[in-house]
Amino acid sequence: MVLSKSWTMVRHFEGAPKLADFKLIENELPPLKDGELLLESEFWSVDPYMRVMESKNPAFSVGDYYVARAGWTTHFISDGKELRALPSNWPESLPRSLALGAVGMPGVTAYIGLKQICDPKPGEVLLVNSAAGAVGTIVGQIAKIKGCKVVGSAGSDEKVAYLKEIGFDEAFNYKTVSSLEEALKKASPEGYDCYFENVGGKFADVALQQMRNFGRITVCGAISMYNDSVPQTGPYVQSVIIFKQLRMEGFLIFSWEDKPIYEEAQRQLLEWILEGKVKYNEHITNGFENMPAGFIGMLNGENTGKAIIKA
Amino acid sequence: MVLSKSWTMVRHFEGAPKLADFKLIENELPPLKDGELLLESEFWSVDPYMRVMESKNPAFSVGDYYVARAGWTTHFISDGKELRALPSNWPESLPRSLALGAVGMPGVTAYIGLKQICDPKPGEVLLVNSAAGAVGTIVGQIAKIKGCKVVGSAGSDEKVAYLKEIGFDEAFNYKTVSSLEEALKKASPEGYDCYFENVGGKFADVALQQMRNFGRITVCGAISMYNDSVPQTGPYVQSVIIFKQLRMEGFLIFSWEDKPIYEEAQRQLLEWILEGKVKYNEHITNGFENMPAGFIGMLNGENTGKAIIKA
Repeated sequence: MVLSKSWTMVRHFEGAPKLADFKLIENELPPLKDGELLLESEFWSVDPYMRVMESKNPAFSVGDYYVARAGWTTHFISDGKELRALPSNWPESLPRSLALGAVGMPGVTAYIGLKQICDPKPGEVLLVNSAAGAVGTIVGQIAKIKGCKVVGSAGSDEKVAYLKEIGFDEAFNYKTVSSLEEALKKASPEGYDCYFENVGGKFADVALQQMRNFGRITVCGAISMYNDSVPQTGPYVQSVIIFKQLRMEGFLIFSWEDKPIYEEAQRQLLEWILEGKVKYNEHITNGFENMPAGFIGMLNGENTGKAIIKA
Repeated sequence: MVLSKSWTMVRHFEGAPKLADFKLIENELPPLKDGELLLESEFWSVDPYMRVMESKNPAFSVGDYYVARAGWTTHFISDGKELRALPSNWPESLPRSLALGAVGMPGVTAYIGLKQICDPKPGEVLLVNSAAGAVGTIVGQIAKIKGCKVVGSAGSDEKVAYLKEIGFDEAFNYKTVSSLEEALKKASPEGYDCYFENVGGKFADVALQQMRNFGRITVCGAISMYNDSVPQTGPYVQSVIIFKQLRMEGFLIFSWEDKPIYEEAQRQLLEWILEGKVKYNEHITNGFENMPAGFIGMLNGENTGKAIIKA
């Protein structure tokens, strides 16, 4: 018998999530049936990353590592269908937690969201907000590889310094600039061709006005709005979309998981990381018992790079 | 010497345009220089449609007809560079004013805006607002030809009746329905794959929520917002764009005027009209002196089909 710990939500969030909204529970897992395997979590993000502890499924061996969407839990029985193996050429030198970050869902989100929607061309200017986050850091570095000028917005001076360290041309702290409009104009007086949106809300109001004609916007996140009980309002977007002939498109990685580009992205990101062309940072919270605190910290922007919970 | 009459704006509009904002002026045109030609306007919309009265340019003959963006004026001297000839196979049986409507800028806007952005597939559901307008009537009919279910919103019961007459599957009067949300749900309980946007504002707030996953939105117009001195506000669009993975793209016909698809569109529209597959309606205001009234009437939705001013 294996005791599995899981975090559950004891109530729906009202406004921002609070620690009291979560509760740690334990339950005993049943013995395996044929075809099943038992996994133990090693790292968690929204997607836990796990290793096989016991297997009655011949396709999976004890000790192998997988990424699974199994919830906030320490142990998990699976029939194997929802498990994604690490890329086959994973080098021992790299932390396996990158399978949840720069080479995992956030990195692949950056790669596909950029390629399929923004489609940046050499010489173009790209803007990304939440730029020091798990997705933003990779977006900016890929755009640099593609020959763009890259501008990033982040929420602390330390993050801004990190962005410059990893090659962003311009970066600013949106919390301390006197005017977002001025900051965007100063960073790129000629405006922006590509805009990778992670924030939404008032940031988007200002940024849309700085787009150049035929600009493309990957709407990947709207972190300024996730915790609203009542939807925020702002100026309607239709006029600026028409007059600048902008393309704005929503992106969810879940629609791409079974497409060949997902593995292409993982292979390419792994290669760029090994070549030193893409740098990564992880913000690690130790201990499964601290997972709600790590989650809330991520929503509050405490992380630079990918927020990871380590067993 | 030819006396040309022109309408000028005596002040910038504050809110909706008023008759007092316009003034009719006259001025004498100079004699032609070599390479120039003198044109007389026969019909006007935002783009006047004209015939050649006198020519010192060997490429243009007296009596020929052209579409030009020459302003609100009765006579006009041109070097010929900005003139667009009618499609070469124009049948005598068709009113030439269609070169300003169903076979002109509005029709071509419908054709290209639909094809390049919404890209409707057989069996999909398309929504168009301002559906009884110059663009909307053509959008709906093309979508029917492409095998879609077509839903239109318009501002009077007469317009709704007209939409059903020309083949719309569902149409409603947005001014008299008790709830726009209910009307959209009733017209298509399964939601909408394509949305051809002519209105913006509060209509868009409601319609976006009715889109199906991977829906496409041609943002062609925002007539509910053009006369605002202070921008209107509404719920931010980012969340619905992400979660439904919508594509929203602005469309301006001026970017397409030199592309081959412009003439393709004119040829195809002319063919469909001659085959009876696309029907048209014109709302004609007689007399150049009534042009401001016709323009204001169009903004107030008095027209079914294309609003035309006739000399």
